[in-house]
Amino acid sequence: MSKPKNAFYAQSGGVTAVINASACGLIEAARAQRGRIGKVYAGRNGIIGALTEDLIDTSRESNSAIAALKHTPSGAFGSCRYKLKSLEENRAQYQRLIEVFKAHDIGYFFYNGGGDSADTCLKVSQLSRTTGYPIQAIHVPKTVDNDLPITDNCPGFGSVAKYIAVSTREASFDVASMAKTSTKVFIVEVMGRHSGWIAAAGGMASDQKTPIPIVILFPEAPFDRQRCMAAVAEKVRRFGYCSVVVSEGVRDAGGRFLSDQGLRDAFGHAQLGGAAPVVASMIKEDLDLKYHWAVADYLQRAARHIASGTDVAQAYAVGKAAVELALKGKNAVMAAIVRTSDQPYRWQVGEANLKRVANREKMMPRGFISQDGFGITARCRRYLEPLMRGEDYPPYDKNGLPRYVRLKNIAVRKKLAQNFAL
Amino acid sequence: MSKPKNAFYAQSGGVTAVINASACGLIEAARAQRGRIGKVYAGRNGIIGALTEDLIDTSRESNSAIAALKHTPSGAFGSCRYKLKSLEENRAQYQRLIEVFKAHDIGYFFYNGGGDSADTCLKVSQLSRTTGYPIQAIHVPKTVDNDLPITDNCPGFGSVAKYIAVSTREASFDVASMAKTSTKVFIVEVMGRHSGWIAAAGGMASDQKTPIPIVILFPEAPFDRQRCMAAVAEKVRRFGYCSVVVSEGVRDAGGRFLSDQGLRDAFGHAQLGGAAPVVASMIKEDLDLKYHWAVADYLQRAARHIASGTDVAQAYAVGKAAVELALKGKNAVMAAIVRTSDQPYRWQVGEANLKRVANREKMMPRGFISQDGFGITARCRRYLEPLMRGEDYPPYDKNGLPRYVRLKNIAVRKKLAQNFAL
Repeated sequence: MSKPKNAFYAQSGGVTAVINASACGLIEAARAQRGRIGKVYAGRNGIIGALTEDLIDTSRESNSAIAALKHTPSGAFGSCRYKLKSLEENRAQYQRLIEVFKAHDIGYFFYNGGGDSADTCLKVSQLSRTTGYPIQAIHVPKTVDNDLPITDNCPGFGSVAKYIAVSTREASFDVASMAKTSTKVFIVEVMGRHSGWIAAAGGMASDQKTPIPIVILFPEAPFDRQRCMAAVAEKVRRFGYCSVVVSEGVRDAGGRFLSDQGLRDAFGHAQLGGAAPVVASMIKEDLDLKYHWAVADYLQRAARHIASGTDVAQAYAVGKAAVELALKGKNAVMAAIVRTSDQPYRWQVGEANLKRVANREKMMPRGFISQDGFGITARCRRYLEPLMRGEDYPPYDKNGLPRYVRLKNIAVRKKLAQNFAL
Repeated sequence: MSKPKNAFYAQSGGVTAVINASACGLIEAARAQRGRIGKVYAGRNGIIGALTEDLIDTSRESNSAIAALKHTPSGAFGSCRYKLKSLEENRAQYQRLIEVFKAHDIGYFFYNGGGDSADTCLKVSQLSRTTGYPIQAIHVPKTVDNDLPITDNCPGFGSVAKYIAVSTREASFDVASMAKTSTKVFIVEVMGRHSGWIAAAGGMASDQKTPIPIVILFPEAPFDRQRCMAAVAEKVRRFGYCSVVVSEGVRDAGGRFLSDQGLRDAFGHAQLGGAAPVVASMIKEDLDLKYHWAVADYLQRAARHIASGTDVAQAYAVGKAAVELALKGKNAVMAAIVRTSDQPYRWQVGEANLKRVANREKMMPRGFISQDGFGITARCRRYLEPLMRGEDYPPYDKNGLPRYVRLKNIAVRKKLAQNFAL
């Protein structure tokens, strides 16, 4: 029997609280199949590691270090924002990838990312066919934006959703306590440039047992200042307070981001805004109400301390499934989450043809946003609820801080003479 | 034996993740002493509830609802920002308090708050002496600012400290993953107008096992743009990335808050800034580095989901101790946390004379800030570490959200004919 082929694994784009759980699932599955898969080499800083032949030998990490990836946020091998050009535009990049794969006897290409990386993964699989170097390309889904098609949801999203729902509930309890004499409106800005999946999760802070007045500003609808302020004023009148969840992707009717209002300081220098302070200013100006605002930014996507149990399990499962798909001889596929039942919630991992995944964004269905445009529907709740379910706490050190692992990340010795200019 | 006197309890100022744990400790202790203490009446929206005779009958709440206060953030009875004037300026307010206490047979005044409420508490005790109506005034400490004197630390602070340390560690892991091609500096803005206790907690994200390059901007030092940018640049050069923890209270050499830079939008309207986006703008302008920024605001002080075990235990204990002090006949005292040992950390609840508490702020000792002004010392770590220790998770519903209680808050029937204008 011939020596088994090695695997290449890389993390791509914005990292999440659970992308390392996918790495964990993948590496543990590969270790369990040692006779059929060789070493797993990780790209240092994502695909750049492949182009520059900067590979990390994950076999140098202990089993316990790999297991700890499951509860460690961020990208343990480094990620990157680096989109490969089209095959026509930059054939050299793809040829270099094949050279590196050849040099290190890599037969499996696992790419853990969002829409762009699905596209890259597809191109690598196509290249394999045209160059005659056999490599199986498998995509492992990841994105807090939840915008990949076919898969019911994307690993990374459920944990952000839980974080935003929990935080919005907590801050709403806070403002409710203060509303009599002080803050009446709390505004939190959440991620999601193109679609309102994360903003929708803010709506989950309120439920039948714990109703909370919340106004959600989705990027799906152009911002209408008058209608928004009227909605906030109405909630404050009825409940004494209101929370506003605003997506960073909200734009005005002219298509300009709320967060990009051309702010200048006293000296006329441009300043970096956010959507939340802009909404806060309007609340002060139009309604003369006291407000507080927060911008969650990285805190939300890194918040492994309050990750969703479902999300951690699914992130691990798609990593593991990627190895199984590879060993079944699959190519140009993505491990996809399939919802087989809503109540009770049941899911399994299936596969999706990468041609149907690459370069398509899944937007929020219109039926998920309430008639008035400021809330979520029962259908949306039914979809979101199981994704936020379950708590999966990391271990803590005695000093009260979570015990996140840092790998040794030992480089594989280079075999190619030439460097590659990015 | 005469009928036992009732108690009045009110929450004051900004609420925290654990102020309700103090309420829980106090009410449970009072219930256990039913023969010696009557009912606990809570002020609806703090002291305003006493002035307007809007009292909540906590005896109408079930034992399980009161127990659930221990894991519920915010102020369950409502809080307020309403500072009583001095006795000389507004005797009518204090006389009204005494009238309400008399009408409802209240012999114990428990006030749960920070420095201002300690002052009010002291005045009530003094009034008791001059008016001849006997009332024992006991202060229950609470403030995320950690600035009350005598007590080793203030309930509410430890949980914010833990939240900021955990979040800074998580976001730092995130930016470390992205730094090769994208974000190199992450900035998080934290609370603390006058002192840097919370900012210091950001420094705890880094420890010997998990070193992280962090620059802390304390309100104790006037902001020096050049030195700050040099510190950030140096960390990025050495580690590839840097996290910045900036206190909302940081001011420039002219005494102006960083967050108050007179921002104007394109139409010249004033906009509400934060300190984090201002620092971000400087990093872009001076260093030309990619950044991300977050403003934690209420998220930090409401984050019961990641409360410190020490903090929850101490918040409960000071509430319970307040009742015990009252039953010992004490007056004009605060239940104070006494650190009896550093290693191992041991604490107990003692008492402090309110005269020594009121109107004094405890600033960070100079020896807690590192020589360069951007970090914390070993002494600071030794102080902070036990306060963040331990996890005390709230229960969760099946839908993945924490089960926080909302009380019935049933009003006590009014007995006074006259309303009181605030």
